[in-house]
Amino acid sequence: MNIKLGEQNLSLEQGALPLHIAKAYAPKEIYKKALAAKLNGETIDLFRPLTGDGTLEFLTFEDEDGRWALRHTASHVLAQAVKRLYPSAKLAIGPATRDGFYYDFDVEEPFTQEDLAKIEKEMAKIIKENHRMERFELPRQEALELMKEEPYKVELIEDLPEGETISFYRQGEFTDLCAGPHVPSTGKVKHVKLESLAGAYWRGSEKNKMLQRIYGTAFEDKKEMEAFLEAKAEARKRDHNKLGRELGFFTTVDYIGQGLPILLPKGSKAVQLMQRFVEDEEEKRGYILTKTPFMAKADLYKISGHWDHYYDTMFVLGDKEMDERGEEVLALRPMTCPFQFQVYLNKTRSYRDLPMRLGETSTLFRKESSGEMHGLIRVRQFTISEGHLAVTPEQLEDEFKGVLDLIQYLLGILGIAEDITYRFSKWDPNNKEKYIGSAEEWERTQDLMRVILDDLRIDYTEAEGEAAFYGPKLDIQAKNVYGKEDTLITVQIDFQLAERFGMVYTDRDGEKKHPIIIHRTSIGCYERTLALLIEKYAGAMPTWLSLEQCRILTITDRAEAWAEEVRAQLEARGVRVKIDSRNEKIGFKIREAQLEKLPYMLVVGDKEVENRAVAVRSRGEGDLGVMTPAEFADRIVLEIASKAHP
Amino acid sequence: MNIKLGEQNLSLEQGALPLHIAKAYAPKEIYKKALAAKLNGETIDLFRPLTGDGTLEFLTFEDEDGRWALRHTASHVLAQAVKRLYPSAKLAIGPATRDGFYYDFDVEEPFTQEDLAKIEKEMAKIIKENHRMERFELPRQEALELMKEEPYKVELIEDLPEGETISFYRQGEFTDLCAGPHVPSTGKVKHVKLESLAGAYWRGSEKNKMLQRIYGTAFEDKKEMEAFLEAKAEARKRDHNKLGRELGFFTTVDYIGQGLPILLPKGSKAVQLMQRFVEDEEEKRGYILTKTPFMAKADLYKISGHWDHYYDTMFVLGDKEMDERGEEVLALRPMTCPFQFQVYLNKTRSYRDLPMRLGETSTLFRKESSGEMHGLIRVRQFTISEGHLAVTPEQLEDEFKGVLDLIQYLLGILGIAEDITYRFSKWDPNNKEKYIGSAEEWERTQDLMRVILDDLRIDYTEAEGEAAFYGPKLDIQAKNVYGKEDTLITVQIDFQLAERFGMVYTDRDGEKKHPIIIHRTSIGCYERTLALLIEKYAGAMPTWLSLEQCRILTITDRAEAWAEEVRAQLEARGVRVKIDSRNEKIGFKIREAQLEKLPYMLVVGDKEVENRAVAVRSRGEGDLGVMTPAEFADRIVLEIASKAHP
Repeated sequence: MNIKLGEQNLSLEQGALPLHIAKAYAPKEIYKKALAAKLNGETIDLFRPLTGDGTLEFLTFEDEDGRWALRHTASHVLAQAVKRLYPSAKLAIGPATRDGFYYDFDVEEPFTQEDLAKIEKEMAKIIKENHRMERFELPRQEALELMKEEPYKVELIEDLPEGETISFYRQGEFTDLCAGPHVPSTGKVKHVKLESLAGAYWRGSEKNKMLQRIYGTAFEDKKEMEAFLEAKAEARKRDHNKLGRELGFFTTVDYIGQGLPILLPKGSKAVQLMQRFVEDEEEKRGYILTKTPFMAKADLYKISGHWDHYYDTMFVLGDKEMDERGEEVLALRPMTCPFQFQVYLNKTRSYRDLPMRLGETSTLFRKESSGEMHGLIRVRQFTISEGHLAVTPEQLEDEFKGVLDLIQYLLGILGIAEDITYRFSKWDPNNKEKYIGSAEEWERTQDLMRVILDDLRIDYTEAEGEAAFYGPKLDIQAKNVYGKEDTLITVQIDFQLAERFGMVYTDRDGEKKHPIIIHRTSIGCYERTLALLIEKYAGAMPTWLSLEQCRILTITDRAEAWAEEVRAQLEARGVRVKIDSRNEKIGFKIREAQLEKLPYMLVVGDKEVENRAVAVRSRGEGDLGVMTPAEFADRIVLEIASKAHP
Repeated sequence: MNIKLGEQNLSLEQGALPLHIAKAYAPKEIYKKALAAKLNGETIDLFRPLTGDGTLEFLTFEDEDGRWALRHTASHVLAQAVKRLYPSAKLAIGPATRDGFYYDFDVEEPFTQEDLAKIEKEMAKIIKENHRMERFELPRQEALELMKEEPYKVELIEDLPEGETISFYRQGEFTDLCAGPHVPSTGKVKHVKLESLAGAYWRGSEKNKMLQRIYGTAFEDKKEMEAFLEAKAEARKRDHNKLGRELGFFTTVDYIGQGLPILLPKGSKAVQLMQRFVEDEEEKRGYILTKTPFMAKADLYKISGHWDHYYDTMFVLGDKEMDERGEEVLALRPMTCPFQFQVYLNKTRSYRDLPMRLGETSTLFRKESSGEMHGLIRVRQFTISEGHLAVTPEQLEDEFKGVLDLIQYLLGILGIAEDITYRFSKWDPNNKEKYIGSAEEWERTQDLMRVILDDLRIDYTEAEGEAAFYGPKLDIQAKNVYGKEDTLITVQIDFQLAERFGMVYTDRDGEKKHPIIIHRTSIGCYERTLALLIEKYAGAMPTWLSLEQCRILTITDRAEAWAEEVRAQLEARGVRVKIDSRNEKIGFKIREAQLEKLPYMLVVGDKEVENRAVAVRSRGEGDLGVMTPAEFADRIVLEIASKAHP
């Protein structure tokens, strides 16, 4: 058996363990830190006997897959601890995650914070006991027999396809159904922290029982874990899903449903202003506004391909059977393309009409299970700055460039241009049935797109299998406070749909041709952008996007008339102002306005009344001293007009 | 038998015919003009024997019910003519309508315009033949036997409830199933005109066969008919459903669906500008903007009452059975109320927070059968200027007044304040199960609303049974070009829903109370308002709502550079301008711009280039002479800023 390990070519006996190879051939450092191994690109246990030739490398906590193995073992330690303390608990699933792990349990009494502390203590004990992790496989019947007390495991085994390997991992008295990999022993887990509790439906479906999920994390190094937990606590303070609710940007309501956020006045105002800003900027850049319906008959989605390639993600008013019986079946739109195409199709077009740039503030709907919903980021209804450009081949590069320029301009104004990364999302040639169009067309379009991106000196990563079903995409990615990446904006090149919808133009040569379509969003989804801004600015929105831009705080009742006068002056200049004339101490009023993160406070007392002035406090710069209302108005009006951000 | 006829009290024999009574006792004028009679408020045939005491009056063509009878007979004459010419045609239904009549036929070959002419000729013949109309009744079996060759009539008879009278009308060789009433003979119909052909599903359902509908009208007086047809032809030119499509305001597409209009650039721009105008005006008047989701779980609609009172009109993603099985069922919203209430419910409220005025540009969905869809007026998705005010009892009248003031202001700006009428829509005390709340609450609320309306000196009609299920409404009605009335705006007073949703405020006295809710729209549904404006202005939208406010037409290529300079100047002032620099004659360019009903044309040729000027033509005022671009900009910018309308 030939194993390549870095520069070394090792000739070893069949069945050699990676752990032993590490000890014999790897630097001591690596041997000591190794958590798992990678054989020909696949992560395996260090204690898994090798059965053939291959390239071997060792994974430590620095490697994502190494961390993953350690935290996966930590989830088993969690399950072992729970079974010791609560023997009647039934086990569901317990994977590692990007930042830790979780395990779902079916217990009679929900866990409490005190339970977590107890469980954490038991986990530390199990780590100290340093049980060896042992892997074994069983035939289906024996596997079912072994797990007969665990109904969820039985269900999982029964759902495994015929012929699939059924493997288990044992550590001391505890055994779990698991595909691995794991670190060699529980002692390797070192430090764990149980972080939170949540309800989670079995298999993510609200039709099933609600289970108890325990979230935790695990680290090799205690200081690193503490730093991580501290950063996370900091991030949580900015988490839009917490802060956005507390500050009154949005809420959700059980009886309305998950993923259907209600924008409260602050959030509504910010979105309204962003939409107007985008629509106006697009108009300046030659875009034409459209407003198209939010639903259509199945017929439309059959032409576009969504009926075949996207059906499960659409809200359908009816079903495929009704459609087959010839009844009218409508579906809510998951995207705008085929609707907006109708504007192009409304007239005969010539090369003189191109490029045609269509923009729409468009609401879309995606059927996602309520378990996956998250604040303003994962929702079932959202509104995007949608648009489609119909272009000739000669115009493609310039128009693509124009789209990116618009995006960068808009993100710059919002102050988030530096926070994004680019991803070139390609098709998956091994899953051709997921796409429309031929392999040649895909490769040609992708090559073309790569040339444009390189020309534009865009620094991008490539992602296979992330394309739309009709073409490759440039995704603009943004990270949330916890570092999780989401797509904010996409730009796609599409050689397919114009043909499907019969979109043509008469070229200079008199020939009928299909335009190329650029599908694009300009600042993407407004809900997601709002979430990003809340996290970026920790709720202190730029003044132009703030509902209440300025609050006048009266020190005494005697200042009320003057406060009203100041308000009128500011409102006449277009500033959104409120007065707090409650009979409360000025310190109390100031603290409240600070907690609400208002851009400006104007304090008015006897002295200000006498001098016809206001004492100005800025959220960012603190005390700005006393000035006339007109002086203050000049300042804030300029700030609003320039859409300044901190 | 005692019959009261005007001032006369007649003692007559059982079985006397109204026709004979007219001859004997009514003025000759009336006898000659009588088409039908009214006995105790019910319209009956003149040839229907009277069987008991009652008050009798005679109906002529001046009376709606008289016209109705004449035109109903005309529809039978139409059917008789069709059966003579196309014996295999099967008869469906043929009622009178507000302006005429129609009849639906099942024929193998669709009718053509030539067929219509032939049929009309045959109808004239039947009228001349002056057949007496004879009414008779049959038991069910005999009725079925008589109609055995007419499958649609058989279906109608079978659907009649047990015990229902089954009546027929015979005229010459032709007999039709019909409840009547009719004029005494076909000769009374006098003048008919067949106007158009359309497809119509049997019983209005797309699941059934498409039939051929022939529309026509009938008059006693030929001149009156000619005037009517001429006015209708004039109206048709303004019909938004024709003109709005021709001018590119909107379109519909078969494979998207009926009642789901696509707003093209001109329509989108007008709606965008109206929405901004309304949102801004509402903000000035203390409204707070919200953006709430377009769907919710069944749970919400159960609280609001929509699940029980409005289910059939909602698009439901699933059905009642799924809901009863405990699965999540979402439904698209038919109105905004319970969604917007969540903004109120998001915080604890005190009397200090009231009145709370919430506004939203809100999209709603109504499941209506596609046969009833019409242009921008009857649609399945629409967007309204929605809003709810939570008020104390003391604030109710002032806030109601404020709402009306806002509405009148907005309609005034649009130039349609004079075109509306008011309707006070009340509940139907004979159909209590259609409403929530007690009879006392309904009567009290209606009395209160009447007092407010009278205080405001609103001139209204009353309509029983037109209230919302939760409260009475003031409907603001507008007529389309054909005189058909639709509700544009509603204002409702609601004492029910705040309690259902647990909305409370702490009053000055420390007590928790439910606010009264005013439901209101301010300019109503944007699609409908757009339709109204297109018809009002015959497509020549006020300049501020026009997508292309001004077009620069070049006489020669030499003027192009100057045209570009003028465009830049105007765009810098916020005017939407295009240049027509095509190599076409100036006359051709002007005619095209006139057909597009553009507000302004600026013609530039050598002379204008030399003088750095433009020759201005206004849509309304014609040639305005030569002026500098700055002079023209001053004029149009003022017109736009003042939202002027013709």
